[in-house]
Amino acid sequence: MNAVNTPLSLPEQVVAAIRAVVGAGPVALHEPSFNGNEWLYLKECLDSTFVSSVGKFVDRFEAELAAFIGAKHAVAMVNGTAALHIALKLAGVKADDEVLIPALTFVATANAVSYCNATPHFVDSEARTLGVDAAKLRDYLTRHTEQRASQCVNRATGRVIRALVPMHAFGHPVDLDGLLAVAHDFNLALVEDAAESLGSYYHGRHTGTFGLMGTLSFNGNKTITTGGGGAILTNDAELARHAKHLTTTAKLPHAWEYRHDEIGYNYRMPNLNAALGCAQLEQLPAMLAAKRELFQRYQTAFTPVADVKLMAEPEQCQSNYWLQTLLLDVELADQRDVLLKATNDAGFMTRPAWILMHELTPFKDCPRMDLTVAQLLSQCLINIPSSASLAHT
Amino acid sequence: MNAVNTPLSLPEQVVAAIRAVVGAGPVALHEPSFNGNEWLYLKECLDSTFVSSVGKFVDRFEAELAAFIGAKHAVAMVNGTAALHIALKLAGVKADDEVLIPALTFVATANAVSYCNATPHFVDSEARTLGVDAAKLRDYLTRHTEQRASQCVNRATGRVIRALVPMHAFGHPVDLDGLLAVAHDFNLALVEDAAESLGSYYHGRHTGTFGLMGTLSFNGNKTITTGGGGAILTNDAELARHAKHLTTTAKLPHAWEYRHDEIGYNYRMPNLNAALGCAQLEQLPAMLAAKRELFQRYQTAFTPVADVKLMAEPEQCQSNYWLQTLLLDVELADQRDVLLKATNDAGFMTRPAWILMHELTPFKDCPRMDLTVAQLLSQCLINIPSSASLAHT
Repeated sequence: MNAVNTPLSLPEQVVAAIRAVVGAGPVALHEPSFNGNEWLYLKECLDSTFVSSVGKFVDRFEAELAAFIGAKHAVAMVNGTAALHIALKLAGVKADDEVLIPALTFVATANAVSYCNATPHFVDSEARTLGVDAAKLRDYLTRHTEQRASQCVNRATGRVIRALVPMHAFGHPVDLDGLLAVAHDFNLALVEDAAESLGSYYHGRHTGTFGLMGTLSFNGNKTITTGGGGAILTNDAELARHAKHLTTTAKLPHAWEYRHDEIGYNYRMPNLNAALGCAQLEQLPAMLAAKRELFQRYQTAFTPVADVKLMAEPEQCQSNYWLQTLLLDVELADQRDVLLKATNDAGFMTRPAWILMHELTPFKDCPRMDLTVAQLLSQCLINIPSSASLAHT
Repeated sequence: MNAVNTPLSLPEQVVAAIRAVVGAGPVALHEPSFNGNEWLYLKECLDSTFVSSVGKFVDRFEAELAAFIGAKHAVAMVNGTAALHIALKLAGVKADDEVLIPALTFVATANAVSYCNATPHFVDSEARTLGVDAAKLRDYLTRHTEQRASQCVNRATGRVIRALVPMHAFGHPVDLDGLLAVAHDFNLALVEDAAESLGSYYHGRHTGTFGLMGTLSFNGNKTITTGGGGAILTNDAELARHAKHLTTTAKLPHAWEYRHDEIGYNYRMPNLNAALGCAQLEQLPAMLAAKRELFQRYQTAFTPVADVKLMAEPEQCQSNYWLQTLLLDVELADQRDVLLKATNDAGFMTRPAWILMHELTPFKDCPRMDLTVAQLLSQCLINIPSSASLAHT
């Protein structure tokens, strides 16, 4: 116990600030809320017996998702990893290509590249967005690649760098203008990993709609959930058609014939999961408002805590505040694990950033640029309880 | 209309026989039934908020599935294709290997081989089981392969044939004794594609438990469904552990660290889908009894129809009768499409066999043996309405 007038330690201050906002623990990092028509739609789904590959909820979920986002097409899938895999294939990523992805991302981004038999090539992030640093990437590509037959070739490996996959970390939009210009100038396909950024806008336009394609996730820990689920967003009708075809075993339409015209995937979202998604989508605006309110309450609570900053949305952007993020002063990086332990011990589920991709065994030999900022961010970053329901505790 | 005493045509006889069993159409090929605790468990799942990667229904589904089957381990997955993919990886299938699979199968079997960057090698079936012909395969391998360093090498391609994946078509067990002996003698890993054979037994033991691993599907058209779902069966604790690890992003257990030690997959079954599966499993014995009764009723109805035979379970086997199958006399193969049209026009959903794998564009150049029997079967085979609920119409 602290005697009167003894100043609180940093861990004590952080625990107190979290408690001031979310109340007593235990509190999860991110839990879904089911306060709408989830039950009704699931029952409707069961009563129809259409729980699987056929059913109206998949079509409806895709249409309503596309409408909310302002994308011409949304193709629902079994999860965000599957969506990324197919988006990369459709972006032309082939065996022995390289794909630029942030070192600071969830492992699914790197895995999806591997599923194409391509190699992830890790790039640095900027503190302002937590996402890929466009200026630093441009400089790196200028020095280390050359154009051959309108393809960007890595001079060190001789391989074609086919695509650039920025990820909107924790829901904060990356510098899309900067990255679109890099993609254009170096002949790279831009695919947005928008797994975490449903409801996040860059200059007024929804993330995931700037690149050739964008991908979403509806995993249980995301802003809305379908149990497991994902989607490809695109404004290109042919890409959308092809994505649907590839993810439904590439079967050609026919009254009874089972003819498949390419190697396809069983990546469709079941109707049961889409039913949950339809109910969740209806509540998305309210959830986004709640998450923004939670950010404001955390901001108030953390203002007096020196050495800790709450991550705010980048300028001209609207973040969904999927996960609320604390950034420690660099000098206090060695306190990160102490803070993780103190908060988790106090019943508040907190988590560090992902281990950087190049530090994982399966990717340790992949090409990479200088990753100083990503390394600093990963050492200084802590995600704190972020469920929409916490805004009103 | 037929005048009195005009004998009915074959299509008319077939339509009449189906109608005698299932009543007036429209009748689907296979529909799920939700007559148990589906509703209760889905509600419980929603109320717990654990709809996704974490939750008790996944563990329960795996335990109850393994107990029903008599396998030591069942690992739930997002679908049967994913289960096959992982089973092949764990069986050691690598890039440039070949994998023996029946030409007469659903495309998922061939696709899963492709996901390993291996090549499917198509083998013939026997009419008795509709599955791989062990004697013909043994003869073929004797003539076309040689053992090099205890590996089975295809003399024509120089590639290693790593595994044999028989599939229990429509729920009828293949000749497992014969195939296990072939696998043993030629150093092949045996993985059973049991996607269609939940509830089917070979010599009293459940299919999918004879090979190194077996895989199941719980797609909406299967005997029981989880919306989308599958599983790996194995009696090997280490294979089960590895299957779970690989299908849950290969993350190592840790209080908060995100460390993944190999390229993993997002192939877990969501808790929501497992909740449905738990309810369905409780009804499986009743469904199997109903499907057997439906077979008997069809058998009675089709006895007077010359030139058409109803597929019955192989000797010493118990089939789940997932899909009821008519086999036309070979001389009437040209009538197959006429019968398909007549039955579908009458409101009875019927389907031919899959187009043989080597006739699909993506697999047309794959190695294959003589496929005479598979070709005949595919020309003479029609699946007719088979839902468990039809036993009591």
